[in-house]
Formats: sequence, C-alpha cells, structure tokens
Amino acid sequence: MSNFIQTLNDAWQRTNSLLCVGLDPEPSKFPGALAGRADAIFEFCRTIVDATAPYASSFKPQIAYFAAHRAEDQLEQLIAHIHANHPGLPVILDAKRGDIGSTAEQYAREAFERYQADAVTVNPYMGFDSIEPYLEHAGKGVIVLCRTSNAGGSDLQFLETGGRPLYQVVAQLAAQKWNASGQLGLVVGATFPKEIEVVRGIVGDMPLLIPGIGAQGGDVQATVSAGRTANGTGMLINSSRAIIYAGKGDDFAQAAAQAAKDTRDRINAFR
Amino acid sequence: MSNFIQTLNDAWQRTNSLLCVGLDPEPSKFPGALAGRADAIFEFCRTIVDATAPYASSFKPQIAYFAAHRAEDQLEQLIAHIHANHPGLPVILDAKRGDIGSTAEQYAREAFERYQADAVTVNPYMGFDSIEPYLEHAGKGVIVLCRTSNAGGSDLQFLETGGRPLYQVVAQLAAQKWNASGQLGLVVGATFPKEIEVVRGIVGDMPLLIPGIGAQGGDVQATVSAGRTANGTGMLINSSRAIIYAGKGDDFAQAAAQAAKDTRDRINAFR
Repeated sequence: MSNFIQTLNDAWQRTNSLLCVGLDPEPSKFPGALAGRADAIFEFCRTIVDATAPYASSFKPQIAYFAAHRAEDQLEQLIAHIHANHPGLPVILDAKRGDIGSTAEQYAREAFERYQADAVTVNPYMGFDSIEPYLEHAGKGVIVLCRTSNAGGSDLQFLETGGRPLYQVVAQLAAQKWNASGQLGLVVGATFPKEIEVVRGIVGDMPLLIPGIGAQGGDVQATVSAGRTANGTGMLINSSRAIIYAGKGDDFAQAAAQAAKDTRDRINAFR
Repeated sequence: MSNFIQTLNDAWQRTNSLLCVGLDPEPSKFPGALAGRADAIFEFCRTIVDATAPYASSFKPQIAYFAAHRAEDQLEQLIAHIHANHPGLPVILDAKRGDIGSTAEQYAREAFERYQADAVTVNPYMGFDSIEPYLEHAGKGVIVLCRTSNAGGSDLQFLETGGRPLYQVVAQLAAQKWNASGQLGLVVGATFPKEIEVVRGIVGDMPLLIPGIGAQGGDVQATVSAGRTANGTGMLINSSRAIIYAGKGDDFAQAAAQAAKDTRDRINAFR
C-alpha cells in the first residue's frame, strides 16, 4: 500500500526539489493549439506535468477548475497519467472538503477511490469528526487548512482564543490531538512567513503545504527559512499560475519547465 | 432573474412548510427495483422529490453522494427536474466549498452555472474574500456554516474569542459585515436549539438552514421555537436520511411522502 508521508519524504530526497506544481486549468488561458479540443483540459495539464516533472516533487490539481467545466473524467485521467508516468511523485487533490462524518466518508471515497489521490486538503471548521473519515484510508495524506494565503484568511484565523490566534490552535490540535495515525499535514500560506515559523515550531516535522509564492507574491527565501525541517525538507512549496501560464503560446510546455526549474532552484538556494 | 431569498419566502408562504428535503443518495440503501440501473441515483432522487414535493419548501442535494459515484450528470439532471416539475421550490446545493477568490469563482460557476442551484453552502474559515465570488452571482443564495450539527463542531466553533464563541462571531460577521447584498443565510444545527436562539438574536430575519432534526436527533419543538422569525418562517429545516430512507422496499416513495408530511406537520404544530 502506498503511504503518502513516506512517498513524499522519498520524493523530496530523490528529486532534490520541494516544488509542488499546482494544476489550476483555465481554458481561456490555454494556447491556441488546444482550442476546441474536447480533452483540452487533460491535454494542457498532461503537457505541463510531463514538462515540469523533472523539477517537481509533487502535483496538486485543484478540483474546482475541473468541476466548473464538467471535466471530472479529465481529472481522473490526469491523476492516472501522473501515477503511470511519474511514479513516486504524490498527487494532492486540492478540494478543501469539510462535512459531517457520513458525508465526509463520501468525499473520502471521491478523493481516494475515484480519483486515486495520495492526499487531499480539508477544512477544519467542522472539527475532528469531519476529518476522521479520511484518516480511515490507511496511508493516505490529509492536509488541514491552518493559515491560508488570502487576505480574508485573517477574518477568522487571526481571532485570538486562549491567548493565541485561531490558526495556531488548529496547528496545536493537528499536532497534539488529531495526528495519532501520522497522516496529517497543514496548509500555511507563503504570504505569511512569520506564521510559517510559528506553525513549524508547533508541529515538529509535519509536512506543510505552502501556496502563495508565485502569483500571490510570497517571498521564497523567507518561506524556506521559516518552514524547513532539520534536513532541509518538510515543505510542499506550491506554485500554480506562475508556472502553468509562464508561456502563453505554443511554447507553453518549455516555458512551464523553465519556470519550474527556476522555482526549484530559487527554493534550493535557501535550503 | 430568480432571487433565492424571495423565492424562499414565497415558498414558505405558499407551501405552508418549512421542510427542506435533503437528498443524500447511497446506492447501497436503494430498494431492489433500482439495482443495476445506470441512472439509479437520479431515479431514486427523482422519485423522492416527486413524492415529497407537496410537503416541502426546498430541496438540498449533497454533492459528495453524487461525486463519490461519478454521478455529476445525474445531479445536473436532478436539479433540472426539480426546476421543471416543481417550480418555485429552491434548490440548495450542499457543497460547503471554501477557497481563495480565483478558485471560489470556479466553485461558484460549478454551483450556479453548471448545476443551476439557487443557493450553495460555503465554509467561512477562509474569510470574506472566499465568499465574495459567490455573491457576484446576483440573486443566488450563499449559506455560510456557523454552528454545525456534528459533535466535533465544538472543536473550533465553541472556542471563545472576544468573550463569545467563534460561531457567534461568524454570525455577527455574516449579519453585520458580509451581507450588504442580502444574499446570505447561515447553517445552524438542530442539535443545539439554544444556539439557534442566540444566532437568531444576532442575525434578525436571515434564513437559517437547520440540519439535524431527523437521524441526528434534534428536537423539533425546541428548534422551531428557537429559530422562527416573527411571521413563523425563517428556517429551512432539513431532514435527509429519516425521509429518503423511511421505506426500504418498493414502497419507498410512499414512505418518504408520509415521513415528509409527518415532519412538516410536526414542525407546523410548533410554529
């Protein structure tokens, strides 16, 4: 059985990369050569995946971009393609699900059985019993929202409770109460490097999924120095738009590869 | 253009019902006659909808139950069926989405353009800018999680911040800051009638979606007396499993109709 945390640790070592390539396909941004193709979403993502795989240690498709276009079948195909052609690079399904236990069981089946993802992102607002059903899928990873990269993240996550902001309480719950099975990770946005450092202090070596270094403007050096573990890993540093839309013409695959390579190297310069 | 809040108010008056029938289809619980049918999920839900429509003022399909079975097309068909055959009964897509703005735009397209839902449930953990893109769909409803019906809901929602539990802060934000366009509602579980009363006090006449009176054990009298507005409405009182699985054999439609009628009447006895 595959084990997400182990696969991820192996991938970090083997690829010498902390880069997670985010797959947020928007047909209106695709190069002209793909226009009109029924499988344009799959074909765009597949091309990006194959071009960037040498520089990445994981991939993160965002399900909303597929669902808005009735392209669930292309998402299934894409994840199967990654597993078949890039074994050892885990796939995180970015879905941010959150619901009561009986419904969470269905979402877990969606992520792990239907899509064959190695890990899924989930929302902590409904508490531990909304997270537990995912953990029953042994070996799969569950990455809990903690401190998100958007401005509005502060609306709730920064509220003080028991002398510390809510996001730190989520980090504590995740590290101290919810992670008996060792399957958890946390989402902490790169737009807030100081908060990455605080979270790292709370959660030990737990993997952190860190979006926000590309289009959202997070600082790479500050992110890496705040989030790395003792062996210089521990982070899935995600870039989506800045990589997949690096080129707008028929050279989009080469442009994405170059952007991925540059991002990996910028990250590695500070490890 | 349809307007969710207006349609809902009209439906409460016209149907004299506060019942929202939740559609959580699980093929393993379907009657034998549907076994093996490729459209079993649609057919089960359609039958339930047509049988219970005389006693309901809204329907709430839960998307996870469709997604786990690759049945998105059947969910589209089902919502189209409700609009065509039961006009004036709004459809709330229970999806509990929550993501940064650019992704939330895609989820909003999924809910409102693809599925043609009248309203969608969303998660507040990522703050207002994760809710705004849904509000840009004029007239559509956005129902924000506040106090959920599950036991683990207390993990975060009961944390004290600024002298009150987090769920009350969410209610305040929703009522006082986030609802300029008048499209919002809140989810408050029936398992906590006292909290429904507190939330009602904070949010005025805002619609409350109240799950938990059926299989989850919430008390109908306490719920109604805590949540009703001055004109005896203001609530979408949801029952899913207790209605749709009221019968297990080929009489499941009649059993569901009877359960829906009984639930409506029990609610009305306390309005």
